[in-house]
Amino acid sequence: MSTALDFMLAARRSEMQGLQALALTCQLVSEISRLVHALQRERGFSNMYLGGQAERYRQPLDELSATSSACAERVRKAFNRMDIEHGCGADKARLFTRVAFVLHGLDALPAVRRRVRAQQISAQDATRSFTRLIAGLLAVVFEAADTAVDPRVTRALVAMFNFMQGKELAGQERAIGVSGFIAGYFDQTQRDKLAYLEDAQRRCFDTFIEFADPDSKRHWLTLCSEELVGEIARLRQVAARTNEQSQVQAAMGELWFELTSQRIDSMKQVEDDLADKLQLMCEHSTSQAKADLDSQRRLLKRLNSLDDEANTPAARLYNVQATELDPLPGERLGNHVQRSVLEVLHEQTVRLQQLHDELENARRSLSERKTIERAKGVLMTQQGLSEEEAFRALQSAAMERSQKLCDVAQTILNYDALLKTPVTRPGPR
Amino acid sequence: MSTALDFMLAARRSEMQGLQALALTCQLVSEISRLVHALQRERGFSNMYLGGQAERYRQPLDELSATSSACAERVRKAFNRMDIEHGCGADKARLFTRVAFVLHGLDALPAVRRRVRAQQISAQDATRSFTRLIAGLLAVVFEAADTAVDPRVTRALVAMFNFMQGKELAGQERAIGVSGFIAGYFDQTQRDKLAYLEDAQRRCFDTFIEFADPDSKRHWLTLCSEELVGEIARLRQVAARTNEQSQVQAAMGELWFELTSQRIDSMKQVEDDLADKLQLMCEHSTSQAKADLDSQRRLLKRLNSLDDEANTPAARLYNVQATELDPLPGERLGNHVQRSVLEVLHEQTVRLQQLHDELENARRSLSERKTIERAKGVLMTQQGLSEEEAFRALQSAAMERSQKLCDVAQTILNYDALLKTPVTRPGPR
Repeated sequence: MSTALDFMLAARRSEMQGLQALALTCQLVSEISRLVHALQRERGFSNMYLGGQAERYRQPLDELSATSSACAERVRKAFNRMDIEHGCGADKARLFTRVAFVLHGLDALPAVRRRVRAQQISAQDATRSFTRLIAGLLAVVFEAADTAVDPRVTRALVAMFNFMQGKELAGQERAIGVSGFIAGYFDQTQRDKLAYLEDAQRRCFDTFIEFADPDSKRHWLTLCSEELVGEIARLRQVAARTNEQSQVQAAMGELWFELTSQRIDSMKQVEDDLADKLQLMCEHSTSQAKADLDSQRRLLKRLNSLDDEANTPAARLYNVQATELDPLPGERLGNHVQRSVLEVLHEQTVRLQQLHDELENARRSLSERKTIERAKGVLMTQQGLSEEEAFRALQSAAMERSQKLCDVAQTILNYDALLKTPVTRPGPR
Repeated sequence: MSTALDFMLAARRSEMQGLQALALTCQLVSEISRLVHALQRERGFSNMYLGGQAERYRQPLDELSATSSACAERVRKAFNRMDIEHGCGADKARLFTRVAFVLHGLDALPAVRRRVRAQQISAQDATRSFTRLIAGLLAVVFEAADTAVDPRVTRALVAMFNFMQGKELAGQERAIGVSGFIAGYFDQTQRDKLAYLEDAQRRCFDTFIEFADPDSKRHWLTLCSEELVGEIARLRQVAARTNEQSQVQAAMGELWFELTSQRIDSMKQVEDDLADKLQLMCEHSTSQAKADLDSQRRLLKRLNSLDDEANTPAARLYNVQATELDPLPGERLGNHVQRSVLEVLHEQTVRLQQLHDELENARRSLSERKTIERAKGVLMTQQGLSEEEAFRALQSAAMERSQKLCDVAQTILNYDALLKTPVTRPGPR
């Protein structure tokens, strides 16, 4: 039969397993960050290649594809290190489903590349393939942040996720900019999309600033004051003024591509820093937790040192614990151990509760984002709106009612749930 | 290397493991319900025994102790069936810590019984030992409800937990009533405590009614209209009017004990029904989930049936998936399978998200209760209030500000957290 001590040690082991999984998660997020960056570059160059610059971009594109493949291999290896045998519950099921989606996308990548080289795919479709895969990779980071067990690491993962998302939106903006400038002008849909992407980037980086460590925040704010940012802003204004009647030179496309690529590369520096810090933080949390849990190990040692007086540690524990209410002469040590057991149990309960509270706080921003994304999805499906129109609709509803964006989003989801048949399964009677 | 399919199956396995753990949890909760009832009876009879009725209550008390021990053995066995090797993360750590606390309490029980028999313990201290153990058992049910993975089962567990808690408060009321009536009167502290217990019971049963299935709710409301309830209410009024100057006959103690015991025994019927329904519901959810997940099994089968055309299933999957963008003649079937993979992935994502939302809703009442309990704890420690005074303070603060009880409680916790040094560990730099 398992004893109180077995369960105390099991609780400790659960926590340690959670932290070890966290170390793997942090590594995985670093690898994903590299792969996303490589795919973003490959997407950009594929666009240039398909935009009539095949000669010039063939070799760099091949190199970028090779880099992406190497990064993808590392991500696959990181996936492989996940414990898929003993993941219990719906949280893990969500994460694994996201991973399956990514692996599925990676498997399809060679075919996309062949069709790009053969120019058998439009720039738009190629972009869509890369964008879908990147979105899948970001979803893995999101679920990883949502299932991490350490509040500090969770905050860092929330910062990282938002930064990666902001950078990806910058990448999408680069892609649309390239095709618009090469065509000479932007139509209404493209101009709306550009405005939306600019706005959405700002929100991501705002959340990043809220959750990032001071150094990364400072690093990012320095980058935001660079001349480059002003130049990109001027090109955005140019793009917004174009239409079929008032076009610009196709060469603007290359300038836009150069500038936005520089900007994205400098974002990558911040992201690399974030990944390194995440790794350090994770190691630190793990070793700190090991130290925190030493009191239990000491307790176990003390109990074991009494072993020569009894047959089994279980019998010993039983005796020792009985002393609280039934003190026998000469069992002073036992009495002392007894108090330790209760103290350790109490400390552990309080500590786990505090961990839980801090985690809830860090995760709130993730859950707000999820609510907003899903409400957008409902508006897009039900009202046939585009992503940017759906977001605008949410925004103006929030303004009108002076409510928070995520409260309006929640109202929409609640209403949507009302309209649908309940998912709850019919009961046994 | 793990494939997309491996991860899809891992997600499926995680869900099934979660549901299997749920079946164990439901069994455990049934066993705990039996043990709690036995301990409540043993506590009541120990009180009568220590209250000067040793002769008359010795034999029934010994029988009740034997029943409790048998129930405890079954609870230990249920604990033993838990997978303590692979419990990952802080949730499991919380549950295991609660279990350790209970095992520790069970180990101490024989000594309590010896001291009761030898009349070497006050009725108050004996009551406290039993009450602490029962609180520990209820905490296990609470954590079990909080970590269950099925929304319907979670709702049933929330109903069950609140009912058990209400019944336990009725048991505590019985114990205080017995000692007060035997003494002939209740002092101010005891009268406050009785008023608090009556109020707290009402809140528990209100939450029970909110979450219970219609049958159990009806069953309970029928019991609430029984004559017995009126008689107990009259005795409560008698108790509230007593004081040192105006006493009642000690024989009232036995009447009170009889009536409240009858009431608690009829509560046990509702609880037994709840436990049976929980079991059924759990079996139903598990088999339903197995059916839901059949589409994946069918997919796997279809992929396997293509095995003779390729070397490994992984290579096959790769080929099949590549067809989305690179269709080759004669790969129609592959194309079909390809769509299925994405469909299954999409359905799974949507389903897991809906599960998550429903779970959040069912868990909200648990988290509100936890917030209120913890705020009460803060007020008790910091302002030296009793449990009932702390609750009154929360109540009147909520009334004054027209806020919800749990919002006021949250404000108190936030303020308390502000005063304390942050738990967050210092970073690597």
